[in-house]
Amino acid sequence: MRRKLFFIVSLFLGYSLFAQNADEVFIRKIADEILVNGKAYDHLRVLTKTIGGRLAGSLQMYKAEEWGYQLLQQSGSDNTFKQAAMVPHWIRGGKDEATAILAGNKKKTLSCIALGNSIGTGGSAIAADVVLINDFDELEAKKEDLKGKIVFYNYKFNPKLVRTFEAYGDAVKYRGQGPSQAAKYGAAGVIVRSMSESTDNVPHTGGTHYNEAYPKIPAAAIGLQDADWLAGELTKGNKIKVSLKTNGHFLPDVEGHNIIGELKGTEHPDEYITVGGHLDSWDNCEGAHDDGAGIVQTAEILRTFNALGYKPKHTIRFVFFANEENGTRGGNKYADVAKEKNEKQIFALESDAGGFTPRGFGITCSDAQFEKMKSWEVLLKPYGGGDISRGGGGTDVTPLNEKTGIPMGELLPDSQRYFDMHHSTNDVFEIVNKRELELGAVNMAAFIYLIDQYGL
Amino acid sequence: MRRKLFFIVSLFLGYSLFAQNADEVFIRKIADEILVNGKAYDHLRVLTKTIGGRLAGSLQMYKAEEWGYQLLQQSGSDNTFKQAAMVPHWIRGGKDEATAILAGNKKKTLSCIALGNSIGTGGSAIAADVVLINDFDELEAKKEDLKGKIVFYNYKFNPKLVRTFEAYGDAVKYRGQGPSQAAKYGAAGVIVRSMSESTDNVPHTGGTHYNEAYPKIPAAAIGLQDADWLAGELTKGNKIKVSLKTNGHFLPDVEGHNIIGELKGTEHPDEYITVGGHLDSWDNCEGAHDDGAGIVQTAEILRTFNALGYKPKHTIRFVFFANEENGTRGGNKYADVAKEKNEKQIFALESDAGGFTPRGFGITCSDAQFEKMKSWEVLLKPYGGGDISRGGGGTDVTPLNEKTGIPMGELLPDSQRYFDMHHSTNDVFEIVNKRELELGAVNMAAFIYLIDQYGL
Repeated sequence: MRRKLFFIVSLFLGYSLFAQNADEVFIRKIADEILVNGKAYDHLRVLTKTIGGRLAGSLQMYKAEEWGYQLLQQSGSDNTFKQAAMVPHWIRGGKDEATAILAGNKKKTLSCIALGNSIGTGGSAIAADVVLINDFDELEAKKEDLKGKIVFYNYKFNPKLVRTFEAYGDAVKYRGQGPSQAAKYGAAGVIVRSMSESTDNVPHTGGTHYNEAYPKIPAAAIGLQDADWLAGELTKGNKIKVSLKTNGHFLPDVEGHNIIGELKGTEHPDEYITVGGHLDSWDNCEGAHDDGAGIVQTAEILRTFNALGYKPKHTIRFVFFANEENGTRGGNKYADVAKEKNEKQIFALESDAGGFTPRGFGITCSDAQFEKMKSWEVLLKPYGGGDISRGGGGTDVTPLNEKTGIPMGELLPDSQRYFDMHHSTNDVFEIVNKRELELGAVNMAAFIYLIDQYGL
Repeated sequence: MRRKLFFIVSLFLGYSLFAQNADEVFIRKIADEILVNGKAYDHLRVLTKTIGGRLAGSLQMYKAEEWGYQLLQQSGSDNTFKQAAMVPHWIRGGKDEATAILAGNKKKTLSCIALGNSIGTGGSAIAADVVLINDFDELEAKKEDLKGKIVFYNYKFNPKLVRTFEAYGDAVKYRGQGPSQAAKYGAAGVIVRSMSESTDNVPHTGGTHYNEAYPKIPAAAIGLQDADWLAGELTKGNKIKVSLKTNGHFLPDVEGHNIIGELKGTEHPDEYITVGGHLDSWDNCEGAHDDGAGIVQTAEILRTFNALGYKPKHTIRFVFFANEENGTRGGNKYADVAKEKNEKQIFALESDAGGFTPRGFGITCSDAQFEKMKSWEVLLKPYGGGDISRGGGGTDVTPLNEKTGIPMGELLPDSQRYFDMHHSTNDVFEIVNKRELELGAVNMAAFIYLIDQYGL
């Protein structure tokens, strides 16, 4: 039955069975090369274990840039260069501490971490009564009672959403906008339930975005077990003060770089297909899944095309973007330069959802382009990535899409484990599975190959 | 396009869109119940952390049986019973030890574990020169040189096989038949490369099967890093002796039990749908993925049907099988009784491939039955399990299939991580992801519901 349906689809789209067979064979070669001789896992070990966390502006950012440049060269780049972009330089500045103070001066340490881009508490701790806020509606309802208080946003991931990125998208506004929304009503500080649905108590950082119209107040995330405990106590009507000490601040912007390699097109050297991930990570982890995985997968595609002697029709750009986590300055710079130079960009693909087992791709494009890509599902299915859906594209390639209108896409790995480690100390090399990482690269390489062969 | 194709398929199969909508709604309810109120993860914690490894015949087997009985009752079983089966009682008997002895009497401890069902070395260690054997062809070629030696089978998983169970199926004969094949040519003992493609050095046990025609010789598995080292040394021509001490032996068979719960059918109470996993595990681990996951998923389906007030048309049997790992006596007993009583069994489903994110089902059935199930893919796809393929069924339901001819199937979770932990100390509660486990149960419950609604 499946074959029969595929045949109907093929006729529809004018994609011949002859071409399909050649593609099947070449994609099988891609998979064999990566699964047998893959280097992505070894590269990831070096990036995570010898460089580690590499937030924009940090010493590790520079080390990672140098490492990335070498990696693209050794993977067979025809033309490797650095594209400068000024990036923010936020530093954590010290140990983040939160202590709950209960009746009778009993204390309980909370597992906490300051939000990225947040300001610190000014050298000493601030202590204030905590107000439980489950969502922004409740914030409005309680706005008269927030002056001088610490607002605790306890908005949870919706467990019914099978794709966890949808739950994250729903909840993350409390991390991004929550501090300024609370400051608007005079709050002294903010605690947010970590953006996760893990079963442990590890806190998760991530960028917050102050609204310049309101005072900037300190903000930290706490682990989920502590969040449940705190919400329970407050719901019972127990008064709880929290003492919060964070130390974040900005230093002047510094020059960072997108690291770019190319494989020159043989037929259309001035037309570009972009594929990449982001080289920066939060400071509190090794950035293994986020986004070391995307980086080493990108290099693996380049290495594999070279190993197989594949000469692309279009020029393929392999981009390690700078500063995704707290600024997207790298992605914006890449888009600005492409626009300035009037580059003919065809498609941009990102891997920034972890090195987990691939399930498919999320694509932002026209109906006709989408139908074309859907016809490739059958080719990707044997490698796990055959589910092509609409929407998405990755933070770093979004500026290119927005500023030039070109279609974009992202690898969609299985998402169930992602928010257990995202932006937390759990994001280390050891939780990456070699073959899952490699299969992500297989599907990305196959997808880029198909776009190169058939255009959009 | 997808909708259009589905419509064509629907017309083909006479499965109306009206029915599809009702099924969509009910399956959404199943998913919501499990993802919001799921108990599988908590039950798994109890099984793994308070009972632990539970090989047939062990004290933990009895504890697990009692726990399983209670679990089925509290999950809402109409009729809970134990089905007795005599099971083997193999014990490891002590610490397994392997030491490589190099030139100059330099020693290197090898990470090793005796194979299940293997005999020990008789109280003291045996020491002999090691012969590297890459496959059975090489064994034949070297058969004159094996007398008194330790044969080291170093057959590797084929990394090109995307579904890792295929690589396991290809390699596992060296664990199962390797010892007797070597004994046939006078070998004194066997070491096998662990059945895994992990990056660590943890050894993996698993059953071996002596051929009664040849002497029974001790046999152990070693970790992959040690296997690579040993193969490297031997390939270089270095002589290596290995000292091996294992202590395995059989005690007399004991009475174990399949633990069975039922949800009575309202229309066809004498027609059975069977769903289950196996309650036993190897002794060297917690049996979290293998197969605690299948057990708690099975109970979760029962709990969910009760929570939703679902009254099945057919009687659904929830079976915790005894002794899958080193005998399949539970699965055989269940099939024998079903045949003896002339039970009308419709379908049997097993979950024994880990509690990883679900991708689909593997089914052994007729063409017509398969086409019917394929039409359900669209209903399972939103929950990750929408890829229905041919073949497979699970060790415990295979006897039922073989002895009564009924169709069988198995949940197919993503398989990349499975052999990293399978039969090793890595198989502990902590490596199970709550939502992946739950999504497996969602897809199983949906599949059982569809079979109950539409028969085969």
